[in-house]
Amino acid sequence: MAKHDLIIFDTTLRDGEQSPGASMTREEKLRIARQLEKMRVDVIEAGFPAASNGDFEAVRAVAEAIKDSTIAGLCRASDKDISRALEAVRPARAGRIHTFIATSPIHMEKKLRMSPDQVIEAARNAVRFARNGIDDVEFSCEDAGRSELDFLCRIVETVIKEGARTINIPDTVGYNLPQQFAERIRLLRERVPNSDKVIWSVHCHNDLGLAVANSLAAVTAGARQVECTINGLGERAGNASLEEIVMAVRTRQDFFDCDTRIDTTQIVPASRMVSSITGFPVQPNKAIVGANAFAHESGIHQDGVLKHRETYEIMRAEDVGWYANKLVLGKHSGRTAFRARLQELGIEVDSEQVLNTAFTRFKELADKKHEIFDEDLHALMSEDVIAPEQEHYRLVSTRFHSETGETPRASVTLVAGSQEQRAEAEGSGPVDAAFKSIESMVRSGTELLLYSVNAITTGTDAQGEVTVRLSKAGRIVNGQGADTDIIVASAKAYLNALNKLYASPERVNPQGDV
Amino acid sequence: MAKHDLIIFDTTLRDGEQSPGASMTREEKLRIARQLEKMRVDVIEAGFPAASNGDFEAVRAVAEAIKDSTIAGLCRASDKDISRALEAVRPARAGRIHTFIATSPIHMEKKLRMSPDQVIEAARNAVRFARNGIDDVEFSCEDAGRSELDFLCRIVETVIKEGARTINIPDTVGYNLPQQFAERIRLLRERVPNSDKVIWSVHCHNDLGLAVANSLAAVTAGARQVECTINGLGERAGNASLEEIVMAVRTRQDFFDCDTRIDTTQIVPASRMVSSITGFPVQPNKAIVGANAFAHESGIHQDGVLKHRETYEIMRAEDVGWYANKLVLGKHSGRTAFRARLQELGIEVDSEQVLNTAFTRFKELADKKHEIFDEDLHALMSEDVIAPEQEHYRLVSTRFHSETGETPRASVTLVAGSQEQRAEAEGSGPVDAAFKSIESMVRSGTELLLYSVNAITTGTDAQGEVTVRLSKAGRIVNGQGADTDIIVASAKAYLNALNKLYASPERVNPQGDV
Repeated sequence: MAKHDLIIFDTTLRDGEQSPGASMTREEKLRIARQLEKMRVDVIEAGFPAASNGDFEAVRAVAEAIKDSTIAGLCRASDKDISRALEAVRPARAGRIHTFIATSPIHMEKKLRMSPDQVIEAARNAVRFARNGIDDVEFSCEDAGRSELDFLCRIVETVIKEGARTINIPDTVGYNLPQQFAERIRLLRERVPNSDKVIWSVHCHNDLGLAVANSLAAVTAGARQVECTINGLGERAGNASLEEIVMAVRTRQDFFDCDTRIDTTQIVPASRMVSSITGFPVQPNKAIVGANAFAHESGIHQDGVLKHRETYEIMRAEDVGWYANKLVLGKHSGRTAFRARLQELGIEVDSEQVLNTAFTRFKELADKKHEIFDEDLHALMSEDVIAPEQEHYRLVSTRFHSETGETPRASVTLVAGSQEQRAEAEGSGPVDAAFKSIESMVRSGTELLLYSVNAITTGTDAQGEVTVRLSKAGRIVNGQGADTDIIVASAKAYLNALNKLYASPERVNPQGDV
Repeated sequence: MAKHDLIIFDTTLRDGEQSPGASMTREEKLRIARQLEKMRVDVIEAGFPAASNGDFEAVRAVAEAIKDSTIAGLCRASDKDISRALEAVRPARAGRIHTFIATSPIHMEKKLRMSPDQVIEAARNAVRFARNGIDDVEFSCEDAGRSELDFLCRIVETVIKEGARTINIPDTVGYNLPQQFAERIRLLRERVPNSDKVIWSVHCHNDLGLAVANSLAAVTAGARQVECTINGLGERAGNASLEEIVMAVRTRQDFFDCDTRIDTTQIVPASRMVSSITGFPVQPNKAIVGANAFAHESGIHQDGVLKHRETYEIMRAEDVGWYANKLVLGKHSGRTAFRARLQELGIEVDSEQVLNTAFTRFKELADKKHEIFDEDLHALMSEDVIAPEQEHYRLVSTRFHSETGETPRASVTLVAGSQEQRAEAEGSGPVDAAFKSIESMVRSGTELLLYSVNAITTGTDAQGEVTVRLSKAGRIVNGQGADTDIIVASAKAYLNALNKLYASPERVNPQGDV
């Protein structure tokens, strides 16, 4: 039986990035996009170009860099949004406009304040306008999961007539159950004229834990594109996990009449990259990519597994990229090996100067830690190496002391703009003291919402990667910092977050989500 | 329409505890059991009494303490296992024996090395033996998801004749898809004689991300008990999440013809307790209990949500216990308030001496941190306060110093047995130096697999809760430690893990899992 194609549309860079605290820089988006391309994702939704200049630039940069995946830009159903998105995806070898409007009674009435007929008119105009600029147009009915079926049929019929090639049915609020959602897709395909001329797509949210199940149910009802994200990242409880969708379809080829093009051995590296860049941890019991997901990863003797892997395992760890990219470099590795490994990791180094800075840091790290893994290199190549000019605050040095019975003290020296400053403070612990030293100079007035540390690799000499989440006047940013010294890593993470608050202008509120 | 009951069978203390690194002490199990009782869980599976003496004692302690939930003990289909489990659950007001045997061709042949007829005979004898000791007997067909339907019908018919009251159909390896799994339940109920005399139960694993969807599909096919865990904890990718099952059924009462008795406002407190005790983090995009699961938790302005909550939210955060337990103690709180709060949190303090130690620690903490939250109290009441006699290693004091350009140094003083020792070491960072100091005294020869820190509450003066995972000769233990000083918390966590390695004997390999 010949298998049909199931198109994987990854929206880590758009819906994933909309999670509070998950915002990414242009360079980080590029790095993830290259990994998605390597994994053979069909469509990469790179952002929402009209949301801010930063979003626009990032989508454009991804469109310029990626050759083997289609690059999509999201836009509301307005000429202005669509024009901006067209401009952003223009450099792509294959570009797509993804335009949407809400179709549920509650969204039309409470959010859009438009009548159903006005919504249909806006959708018609949007798709027509987009098709004048590009061939590949996708249309989404926001909150389709709670929309009336008759109305959905009407609006979808309209946009198909205008030339939309992909029709996306999102369960925006994660309300659907698999049987119902599959039935909805089946009925739409049955009732809408020319439904066989388009690709039906789904985009499910995970509020009830059913995003993957709803997506797979829709596939059995004929959907041939699934929108998903690495690690299930996304607003609230997130989107359908790319890794779970791909592996369910691949593992159960006895059941599904379609398959994806994904190179599954790139899944775990992609998961780690997204987790490291966003600072969102993956829980150990997460399917496919969690640290415990495979029994023989656990180190526990299980007679069954040892005798016959299939007793307890339905997938092989190596097929999803566990054990890939293990040992890399050490203190005797030279510049050439270092540069080559960066290239393999998709980290582009633009100038000799940046390479020199990076190589110096690599040598410093290799003095403290005898095995340098890929994860260390990712942490090393953070924003302040690649684009130091974008950093307002920069850490120069730290000093701290703590002893049972005394109050911990830290002193921090930093550069703010071009001025070097130093301050000392006490705290409830050394991290608190370091943050208070920084605040005594910077006076940002932010609130610390979250602080977490993860060792990047195993062993006591591992680097700690610190994530801090700061909030100020309703804006939330995550900052990361890595170092073998946890206090230094904490100070770096705090300054990284402050730099994000300092640099990025408020984003236009998209007022909607697919 | 009158709703049928859907029985919630929580196996956090049994299947959840089987996750590598999630092992719990008796006191920790008791604390979680009390929270499950408060949440109105119908059945609490407290452990596998034949696995070790520790398991036996823990099940017995839970059976003694809990009044409002049925207490189940797991056992293989052998008289010896069942006798041990009967003894463990005897003190319970309502006890249950849960016995199992594998029924799939691969498990019978490769693991049990028994013929199908021998398996049926063993099941018959096990249920008969169990029913001689207790009324409430549950029988599970391990790996039912990959078993032949005809064989399942035969074995289930046999055990119903012997008096099994609950028939559990586990998808042990997480291989099933919702439609198929529901069909399997439907066919079993249709074909097995007297199927209406028993409760049908399901127990799904999450290897393909479908544990919740498979469980719910089974409910639509007539299953009336779901086995699940808090946070979806469990072997490999874990079990079905209790919180997702309960909230899907509650939120979609328009679809389901049954409902649970669960007090949903206890869900988030239970999730936090389990995460804190096991050291398994909950990812921010986890449904229901993740930090980002509710949009207005994120602090982001979203016009839609502000105007009408229902635009983007299908549940209310307060209904699952977000914002609960915000009551705060401070440095002026007295002994009575402190004791009362511990009682409300389900933390039992056996003696005045323990209360005194705990109260002294509370005052010390209140000097460093001006608001003491419930999470702080949980961290404070760790094993070394409640059962100090069980601790072989105990931290006395630490001292460390670090400065840019110098190698970090730490010195640690600890008591091993009754002997006080002190050592000093250098490291790649202060945590590494502290661990190396400890190792220079203890010489445990363990490998550090994982190191993570999470702030227990928000704010820079929060306590850090450190989790370390150590491995030695195939055994894996997690250790936790909390302190406002991250280095002190790290040293405590490391010693806590060493104490677990030192104390607990090797567990009997259960050679199976439901």
